[in-house]
Amino acid sequence: MGELALIDALTGVLTHRSKRVVRWLGDDAAVVRAGGDFAVTSVDAMVDGVHFDLARMSPSDAGHRALAGALSDLAAMGVAPGEAYLALGVPDAMAQSDVVELYRGVDALAQASGVTVAGGDVTQAPVLLAAVTVVGWAGDVDFVVGRDGARPGDLVGVTGTLGASGAGLAILEGRASGPPELVDRYRRPSPRLLEGRARAAAGARAMIDLSDGLATDAAHIGRCSDVLVEVDLERLPLAAGVAEVAVALGREPGEFGATAGEDYELCACVPPERRAEAEATAALHWIGTVREPSAGEDAGASFTGGSGVQDLAGFEHEVS
Amino acid sequence: MGELALIDALTGVLTHRSKRVVRWLGDDAAVVRAGGDFAVTSVDAMVDGVHFDLARMSPSDAGHRALAGALSDLAAMGVAPGEAYLALGVPDAMAQSDVVELYRGVDALAQASGVTVAGGDVTQAPVLLAAVTVVGWAGDVDFVVGRDGARPGDLVGVTGTLGASGAGLAILEGRASGPPELVDRYRRPSPRLLEGRARAAAGARAMIDLSDGLATDAAHIGRCSDVLVEVDLERLPLAAGVAEVAVALGREPGEFGATAGEDYELCACVPPERRAEAEATAALHWIGTVREPSAGEDAGASFTGGSGVQDLAGFEHEVS
Repeated sequence: MGELALIDALTGVLTHRSKRVVRWLGDDAAVVRAGGDFAVTSVDAMVDGVHFDLARMSPSDAGHRALAGALSDLAAMGVAPGEAYLALGVPDAMAQSDVVELYRGVDALAQASGVTVAGGDVTQAPVLLAAVTVVGWAGDVDFVVGRDGARPGDLVGVTGTLGASGAGLAILEGRASGPPELVDRYRRPSPRLLEGRARAAAGARAMIDLSDGLATDAAHIGRCSDVLVEVDLERLPLAAGVAEVAVALGREPGEFGATAGEDYELCACVPPERRAEAEATAALHWIGTVREPSAGEDAGASFTGGSGVQDLAGFEHEVS
Repeated sequence: MGELALIDALTGVLTHRSKRVVRWLGDDAAVVRAGGDFAVTSVDAMVDGVHFDLARMSPSDAGHRALAGALSDLAAMGVAPGEAYLALGVPDAMAQSDVVELYRGVDALAQASGVTVAGGDVTQAPVLLAAVTVVGWAGDVDFVVGRDGARPGDLVGVTGTLGASGAGLAILEGRASGPPELVDRYRRPSPRLLEGRARAAAGARAMIDLSDGLATDAAHIGRCSDVLVEVDLERLPLAAGVAEVAVALGREPGEFGATAGEDYELCACVPPERRAEAEATAALHWIGTVREPSAGEDAGASFTGGSGVQDLAGFEHEVS
């Protein structure tokens, strides 16, 4: 694979979308006019065989998934994305046309998200790996939503539906059967960028994206905010077909939805006085509340309902 | 390796150096107050066995090297670095203490360079890999030096000395002998951040860092600027001991210095009327000139002197 020929091919795939991008691909670094006073930056690395599997998805899916995972972190901060930078490690055996396909998957999601892929690096590696850096811009740091703002009394809500990605993987692997929409959710997750910004504008004061699964991610909010996030597993909005897949796998549906991971929905904590506002701007499914930890209790998350599992954090994720 | 325990350990190693970093490690994204109107961003991925080898260097060296490679790109743009983001893929067999050591290497160079490591990602991978994103800030885009500004008549200069990293690797592998300083140059290259900014202030109008080697990198300037960069191999400033290593390897010293790669020195093109200014601010060793390509000649680089090699771009780099 000739490096220059490949870079030429990739430059043809990517689209320069923003006048703010002054220097793009092909120099030592990209130069971008700041889109606000604050840069909000996240990095997400995915590795073939760990976070995706080219035996089960196309190179375009892998590219989509790598960018989606990174953009999902910006969604969880409630900011608009600006630029993405893609470091790709490519094994010798991978066809150049497949690398170009991967970039097409990245660029299609970038287009749908209003993002310019402004730079990157392509190098040799023993397995396919993609490390994506995304930068969003905020005018005011007060509108950026972290994990540490949850307060006792807050309502806990999630966007969309849960368990879809893990169920999709089980279907893909022939361990269960179910609708093809679940497989799509595994292969091409949607970062909830608009939902994140809507949640931030409607008063969410802590937010996280559900990459590892609610059991792990809600506990991150709890620890960062020094509170206990209480979730009722029977109230989780499972995607259609997920309960059947869970049962086929011998799992309790609520526990499956809370641990399977990589749904890339958002979990938000909203003060009760802003409930109506939160419900007016976008669908948020209420699944629990925030309270002070009792004496002797650690900050984190606890789970009721379903099979009454108390600590799900040690459960295996269905996907990485 | 417990993810939370590891992240706690790594957070203890890294140092929050800048008041501009509003949200640091431990959230979905870092939030940084823009340090200028323009963000200058570069991504550099390194993989064990390709760009470094843990059999030949400590984890701390590998961390230093990964950050150095990325910072070198900012040096070549002539901008001051601000933040770094580190995506790390860690094999199961790597001890947690070695991961912490790697971070120590990253943070020590970050400290020396005035950089805050503001975020990142740690994930499982079949081999150790480090993808580093660095962001510098510029107040005015006119002071950012790209690869496309070289003009006929410009003088071509390089900082420091060449061939050291490739010679150091040959010594480390027992293929030649030479001073230990060469091995240090391979293990812990110095990004030429101050030199790059000095060059930019003193009128350099095209610049690149020498990661692949002068033969390849000078040709990048030539192609991007649509000129021919002519280099006299006999004028290359080889590091002490490099000529002897080259001869021991059966290589011509000038050709070795131009192709061995990963010296992370800078190559700058300076208009002749600013020669005195360029020489006053920092040592720059003149090695050639820029001219128009003749009819039928492609833009790029050409090499005279030494064994008179005309096209070095196809040569194997001594290091990746």
